[in-house]
Amino acid sequence: METRSIFQNISPIDHRYSLSEKEVFAAAAAWLSEEASVAVCLKAEIALVAAHLAIKGTAPGRLAELRTELEKAGASVSTAEVYAEEEKTHHNIRALVNVLKKKVPAEIAPMVHLGATSVDILDTSLAYRMKGCCRSVVLPALRRLEILLCNFAEKEAETPQVGRTHGQHAVPITAGFAMAEYVSRLGKSVLEIERLSTQLKGKLAGAVGAYNAASMIVRDPEELERIYLAELGLEASEHSTQLVEPEYLLRLLLEYNTAFGIIANLADDLRNLQRTEIGEFREGFAADQVGSSTMPQKRNPWNSEHVKSLWKTFMPRVITFYMDQVSEHQRDLSNSASQRFIAEYVTGFCLAASRMAGVMEGLAADRERCLANLQSGGGAVLAEPAYILLAGGGVSDAHEVIRKITLAAEREGISFAAALAKEEDIQRRIGEQLVKLSGPETPDCQKVPDSAEAAAAHAFFSKPENYCGLAAKKAKELAIKYRTLMKEKEKE
Amino acid sequence: METRSIFQNISPIDHRYSLSEKEVFAAAAAWLSEEASVAVCLKAEIALVAAHLAIKGTAPGRLAELRTELEKAGASVSTAEVYAEEEKTHHNIRALVNVLKKKVPAEIAPMVHLGATSVDILDTSLAYRMKGCCRSVVLPALRRLEILLCNFAEKEAETPQVGRTHGQHAVPITAGFAMAEYVSRLGKSVLEIERLSTQLKGKLAGAVGAYNAASMIVRDPEELERIYLAELGLEASEHSTQLVEPEYLLRLLLEYNTAFGIIANLADDLRNLQRTEIGEFREGFAADQVGSSTMPQKRNPWNSEHVKSLWKTFMPRVITFYMDQVSEHQRDLSNSASQRFIAEYVTGFCLAASRMAGVMEGLAADRERCLANLQSGGGAVLAEPAYILLAGGGVSDAHEVIRKITLAAEREGISFAAALAKEEDIQRRIGEQLVKLSGPETPDCQKVPDSAEAAAAHAFFSKPENYCGLAAKKAKELAIKYRTLMKEKEKE
Amino acid sequence: METRSIFQNISPIDHRYSLSEKEVFAAAAAWLSEEASVAVCLKAEIALVAAHLAIKGTAPGRLAELRTELEKAGASVSTAEVYAEEEKTHHNIRALVNVLKKKVPAEIAPMVHLGATSVDILDTSLAYRMKGCCRSVVLPALRRLEILLCNFAEKEAETPQVGRTHGQHAVPITAGFAMAEYVSRLGKSVLEIERLSTQLKGKLAGAVGAYNAASMIVRDPEELERIYLAELGLEASEHSTQLVEPEYLLRLLLEYNTAFGIIANLADDLRNLQRTEIGEFREGFAADQVGSSTMPQKRNPWNSEHVKSLWKTFMPRVITFYMDQVSEHQRDLSNSASQRFIAEYVTGFCLAASRMAGVMEGLAADRERCLANLQSGGGAVLAEPAYILLAGGGVSDAHEVIRKITLAAEREGISFAAALAKEEDIQRRIGEQLVKLSGPETPDCQKVPDSAEAAAAHAFFSKPENYCGLAAKKAKELAIKYRTLMKEKEKE
Amino acid sequence: METRSIFQNISPIDHRYSLSEKEVFAAAAAWLSEEASVAVCLKAEIALVAAHLAIKGTAPGRLAELRTELEKAGASVSTAEVYAEEEKTHHNIRALVNVLKKKVPAEIAPMVHLGATSVDILDTSLAYRMKGCCRSVVLPALRRLEILLCNFAEKEAETPQVGRTHGQHAVPITAGFAMAEYVSRLGKSVLEIERLSTQLKGKLAGAVGAYNAASMIVRDPEELERIYLAELGLEASEHSTQLVEPEYLLRLLLEYNTAFGIIANLADDLRNLQRTEIGEFREGFAADQVGSSTMPQKRNPWNSEHVKSLWKTFMPRVITFYMDQVSEHQRDLSNSASQRFIAEYVTGFCLAASRMAGVMEGLAADRERCLANLQSGGGAVLAEPAYILLAGGGVSDAHEVIRKITLAAEREGISFAAALAKEEDIQRRIGEQLVKLSGPETPDCQKVPDSAEAAAAHAFFSKPENYCGLAAKKAKELAIKYRTLMKEKEKE
Repeated sequence: METRSIFQNISPIDHRYSLSEKEVFAAAAAWLSEEASVAVCLKAEIALVAAHLAIKGTAPGRLAELRTELEKAGASVSTAEVYAEEEKTHHNIRALVNVLKKKVPAEIAPMVHLGATSVDILDTSLAYRMKGCCRSVVLPALRRLEILLCNFAEKEAETPQVGRTHGQHAVPITAGFAMAEYVSRLGKSVLEIERLSTQLKGKLAGAVGAYNAASMIVRDPEELERIYLAELGLEASEHSTQLVEPEYLLRLLLEYNTAFGIIANLADDLRNLQRTEIGEFREGFAADQVGSSTMPQKRNPWNSEHVKSLWKTFMPRVITFYMDQVSEHQRDLSNSASQRFIAEYVTGFCLAASRMAGVMEGLAADRERCLANLQSGGGAVLAEPAYILLAGGGVSDAHEVIRKITLAAEREGISFAAALAKEEDIQRRIGEQLVKLSGPETPDCQKVPDSAEAAAAHAFFSKPENYCGLAAKKAKELAIKYRTLMKEKEKE
Repeated sequence: METRSIFQNISPIDHRYSLSEKEVFAAAAAWLSEEASVAVCLKAEIALVAAHLAIKGTAPGRLAELRTELEKAGASVSTAEVYAEEEKTHHNIRALVNVLKKKVPAEIAPMVHLGATSVDILDTSLAYRMKGCCRSVVLPALRRLEILLCNFAEKEAETPQVGRTHGQHAVPITAGFAMAEYVSRLGKSVLEIERLSTQLKGKLAGAVGAYNAASMIVRDPEELERIYLAELGLEASEHSTQLVEPEYLLRLLLEYNTAFGIIANLADDLRNLQRTEIGEFREGFAADQVGSSTMPQKRNPWNSEHVKSLWKTFMPRVITFYMDQVSEHQRDLSNSASQRFIAEYVTGFCLAASRMAGVMEGLAADRERCLANLQSGGGAVLAEPAYILLAGGGVSDAHEVIRKITLAAEREGISFAAALAKEEDIQRRIGEQLVKLSGPETPDCQKVPDSAEAAAAHAFFSKPENYCGLAAKKAKELAIKYRTLMKEKEKE
Repeated sequence: METRSIFQNISPIDHRYSLSEKEVFAAAAAWLSEEASVAVCLKAEIALVAAHLAIKGTAPGRLAELRTELEKAGASVSTAEVYAEEEKTHHNIRALVNVLKKKVPAEIAPMVHLGATSVDILDTSLAYRMKGCCRSVVLPALRRLEILLCNFAEKEAETPQVGRTHGQHAVPITAGFAMAEYVSRLGKSVLEIERLSTQLKGKLAGAVGAYNAASMIVRDPEELERIYLAELGLEASEHSTQLVEPEYLLRLLLEYNTAFGIIANLADDLRNLQRTEIGEFREGFAADQVGSSTMPQKRNPWNSEHVKSLWKTFMPRVITFYMDQVSEHQRDLSNSASQRFIAEYVTGFCLAASRMAGVMEGLAADRERCLANLQSGGGAVLAEPAYILLAGGGVSDAHEVIRKITLAAEREGISFAAALAKEEDIQRRIGEQLVKLSGPETPDCQKVPDSAEAAAAHAFFSKPENYCGLAAKKAKELAIKYRTLMKEKEKE
Repeated sequence: METRSIFQNISPIDHRYSLSEKEVFAAAAAWLSEEASVAVCLKAEIALVAAHLAIKGTAPGRLAELRTELEKAGASVSTAEVYAEEEKTHHNIRALVNVLKKKVPAEIAPMVHLGATSVDILDTSLAYRMKGCCRSVVLPALRRLEILLCNFAEKEAETPQVGRTHGQHAVPITAGFAMAEYVSRLGKSVLEIERLSTQLKGKLAGAVGAYNAASMIVRDPEELERIYLAELGLEASEHSTQLVEPEYLLRLLLEYNTAFGIIANLADDLRNLQRTEIGEFREGFAADQVGSSTMPQKRNPWNSEHVKSLWKTFMPRVITFYMDQVSEHQRDLSNSASQRFIAEYVTGFCLAASRMAGVMEGLAADRERCLANLQSGGGAVLAEPAYILLAGGGVSDAHEVIRKITLAAEREGISFAAALAKEEDIQRRIGEQLVKLSGPETPDCQKVPDSAEAAAAHAFFSKPENYCGLAAKKAKELAIKYRTLMKEKEKE
């Protein structure tokens, strides 16, 4: 067996990340390594022999016996053996067939690969591996991340935070609501990935997809195909050339890339929320971790940066996926090498999902900092409700009136609430609307005795965190919905 | 109104292709031009006022009256007016609102844009336009192409043609089967596009998605959003920031790109089948058309080349779509300009689909040339069934035996059938299998009197076109299935 | 002449941006519109006739006369005429030739297009337009931006600002130094673009590049090509197929994309430096500009966002440029439509460069805010020099010693300088190094009387802005170097 | 040392291609594996210590001694050790520094990494490795390919072949001329790669590029940087942030991708020229190689297909390179993971270049087939010279006259020469021009006695291969030019 120091590998996945993310690598490699590829091709060849035996009406008992022998034979084939044979044949599937034929009972040998073209094995195996990897590795990683997002969204559902557009303070939200964005977006992507993973197809339609060879062997070649694929839990491509229609797999990969984009967006938000000047969120940080080789004080959001960087690495590979749709006539081979790199893409995506789950596990909101930032602008973020309430009270140039108060507050260096209080009439009219809207339960009304309206206005505008709309409600609803959905799927 | 010679435009779509494909351009522009964009934003603003009126419980009669006035006001706003106003405000939606406000009845003016942030209008309008354009322009163009593919596949279902892999003759198919590939692939994509077009969402969740503003106006902001969007035939994004979740539209665009890839693949096949040396298919060619400014004899497959070129132009834009998933916090504006170019992408896709439909309309198979090419190799394409039948007859080294006969045929310059006939024993064993497989109805058996087996073999191997597997059957089935599906959808 | 409301166009460049950036649009359209394309093809056809006349040895006087007639004829051809003719020929250059032939003197008519294939005109014209647009539009826009960057870098060369890595405060720089990054990167790209613009090539090598046709007309076809191209200020492609070698233009486009990336990076930095919490830089803002339709207080960095968005739109088109390298045999036509969109790419790039120049023109550094942010961390950004000086003083675990002082400062809520002062011995050793390094001119040494070393240390660590390394020097040097280079080039 | 079966790797480069292309893999891995990366970082750290010693004025003898010790220490560090340390520090360069410090003489230990930030080592090492790999692996592979192209172009310089545009027969060229396209295009790219490889830069400008740390250590930090980099054969980035300016490396990678596109184009041409119906070129094919697991007769151009597929895999990664230009402020880390994959890109490019060289080595032109194809159209490819000569003879509607003769030839099933001979007057006028052009040495004039003009015309139009323009001349000139250039560079 060929071995090599992992540090002599070229792909960072095969050296650095196979160490730093041992479990993800192992889980992915079980489906996506070359060893896995050869093993699944053997599985497909055995399924084909079994299909031949079945369609011939082999007695169940005998079938079971032969099956056992076949599987023993298959298990005894090593990747290295196949590669050694390929040096002679210059053809990977012919090599595998040659090796397998020598190991199966003589009566079965002629049935090995009978009626198949290489791609009947290769494309079917690829579908099998992509489906298996999706359901065993990708989806669990994504569900874990999604549940952690749900938990965070729920936990911080009521934590006031300033909403930001264009990098500027806009109006308040809650920290949980900000994360609920990702609950909702990633949640739907997970469901879509689940759906698409069941759509992958195999084939046994021969060299050009017209079942030419099989029609020389059996009366109903599509029946043979059905039995073969059912052995592997798959169905047949509706039409085949030498290849399975490329779109079944393409759509799954595109949705991976969609989920990848969502995770990258999350990574960007976390990076920015950890800026020195913002400091609202914090990745966990190991006790003896060094932030910088020269700057002892630093704590870098390097996990989020890493995820973003993985996205930059893998997202553009979607161009290759789209180029591989195009194959001349009944196929040219120009999708062969490129398709082999799908394994790397899927592993890279798993690494990103897993790393992001790690970030979410250690992520903490600094609630004080969130509140301090929200309040830092002296309540200018409340210009919007002031204008709306005033307009609601029938003042037609409300937007302009409030804009002037904002400027006055800035000029005098006082809070927006204080500047508003100076304009008694306006404050009262706004207060009226507030009381109308909220009823007597308006928060903190009692504290300011003079008039209920002024009191309401003053109470409201002193606390930007009161103006969070449905943020908390939406955060909780989404968290509960998707956590439930994820847990149901996990049980399946 | 600003006008300009179309030849002074920059985008080829706005000059050259708006002339060469007048109908497609006009149909797309009705949804995708700047004029259409402004008109739909007005429609959305009016829907919002209507929603306010409805939630306030305005009496139906009065509602209808106001509605009429609103629509009159909306219809009287020109794009040029809005642009003139924008020069003052430097903000496109504020400009539109200012203009509209002046035109609606005074009692309604305060409700214009009330509780909305610009993107509540913009993203909702984009969803409305993308959905409308999909259902009115994209899908009809695709269905037309799909039906033409069905017709061709059916018409040539039995036309023998050589199947090609790696650009080499492989085994026979039929010309209809070759096109049925695209029937099947494009057909599914059309169905998926239909599904995704119904998934586009709007929003009225305000500046950061938490319904802050609306919660100052109504008790149930989500109810207001529902009414607003129902006016436009849309539903709400499950979660919003300032933006609708980007994935609803992203998935539709990705599926467009998937269909685009299928069409590009078709274009490539047609280009190659029109090569001088192949000449199996032929695009229609106008009587006075010049193929080359210097080579009078030329007939170039330039429509298929054009489609391929459009694919190279537009396919990579999918990178922009994926980059636009990422928006910081509750949004940064860095998706604003880029999103405007989606209009160009969709138009480009329509142009390609429409051009390809034009190609299919004029496409003809040269049946003689198809057959001549298939037979040109002296029947070497029948090496596969010979090997399979021989193996089926229990000869273990069948592949090698046949390979030698192939070489002998090549050496002696005779056909494969003739070379096979020299090997009587082998020919007979193959014939036995043929008879077993096909029964007495084996084609042309009677012609060669000596032995039924040799006769069967000779008959079969003299005509490569006999070895087409299920090609004709699949071609017809798929043609019927998808033509029926398309026609059903057209009626909807 | 076909005209259309610009609002009925599809590409944002042909409606929205042609208005908002009128000058850039007009300048670009003069080279890149369809009208410009036809005009330059006419110019090339005339150059070809002139070349024929010259190689035939036409007398100078007669040549001048014919030339005048030719140019008059060319000037009288309208794009609309050519398009009308193309409806008959279905071939754009044949149409142009037909129209031109009718307008030139009869004795010259046979020389029109003689020996040329369409692409001899088209590719040559493309090179001419790309070169012209580069030198007349692109480079002036880039130089303007570069000079504005130089001015800013120089003006703020000494303005202390905190350096940031990973979004975290690192060590101090100056605001001018931060911008000098772009001076240096963009400056080199401008020089490279200048170089590459002179490398574009034309051809007159005929239908397959072997000068077949011309060799039927003249004894030295390469001489004819040289004269033809010299008329247009171009040289010949070293080898041609039907096409000029694609890499001459490709490299220019790649360098445009490189410059685009630099500008996008600048845009991102400006966006972030304008965040509410940072506020160090500020884009100019028109007096009556509306930041948000609902939030009166907002000032968004929308120009920088716009530039970033343009980059996301255009950067990925580089994939098309690379795909267009591949053309089968002596050419397939699949680069035809795609190449037409280069015009849009170049215009988009000009728009971004111009908009960014506008931003730089109005950009201001808020020096107080820069300083306040730098000082906000209590001098923790000085942990690095403390560790280095201490190490330089022979303390082997300096990094750890300083890290503990940092933590103490944080725990006690005092500045780093104060915490350091508590550790007298360490402070002294650091001071010794400082004195050694700077000599008696150590800043502010005199202010603290007790010991020169402690004084030096205290003075240094009280002011993070002292620790700016060569920031100011580099900023100035680069500003002067590139401003000089740009101004020299402008004069050329 | 961590080892693993190569078949358990994920990247095809680390399993399949590391076996099938053992030498390329080994050569690339020596520069691009993780082991190489760590080794070069150690080399850089040692260079830094040496620079410190030099700037301190250490006596030459002592310097040499210490240097030896340093290198011994460096050589004794294993990648595994560094990784083990990184598990504690969570920082790769800090880990390497810790390990190295323990191994160097105590007096030197404080100088290890002194004044450097991690990226001063990492980016410098990357430049060193990229330059080394380019000059030791990439360029030799490209030069080998280029020379093989030159040889082929020269050998087949006079082999007539039909030129093809749009996949249609156009006019004749020679097989060598067709390959000279790649000689010329790839040749220039090789020269450009050589140039760019010398432009890669390093840095020692510290954490934010302003030489903050180094200015605490030495009076002239740029001098220290110069010495450090000179040790590694590099120069300094003109401006640095934490990073070297990204464009130095970007431009090299873009030019790699340009060369990759040229090679992909060549691969496509070779694929098409090996089509069953064309068969003009042939890849070498091993004696016992299996073309298909089911179709014994097949010979697939799988090496060219493989190269095309590698291009589809790697070309789009250029998007990542462009995205990595953008790094916030003095850097964010989001280029870290993505940059690690450059190693894979470069290896993939080497694999493609090497495979293509292998193809060229075994490539043969089938001269008979070339000629047969050229002649197959009955000389219709000579319609162009007939039209040009006739026009040259003063016939104004020459294009139309010849088009009719072409149609007559087609209708009557005779050759173009025969159809032309029927139109005596036209044939004579054409012949006159031919004689004028070629002089008495017109090929084969003597054979047809009646009239010199008719003879000349008949001789010319009977042999399409006469109409090759400058094909042979250009092929030879380019072959000689670039072979000479490549051989000169090899000696350097």
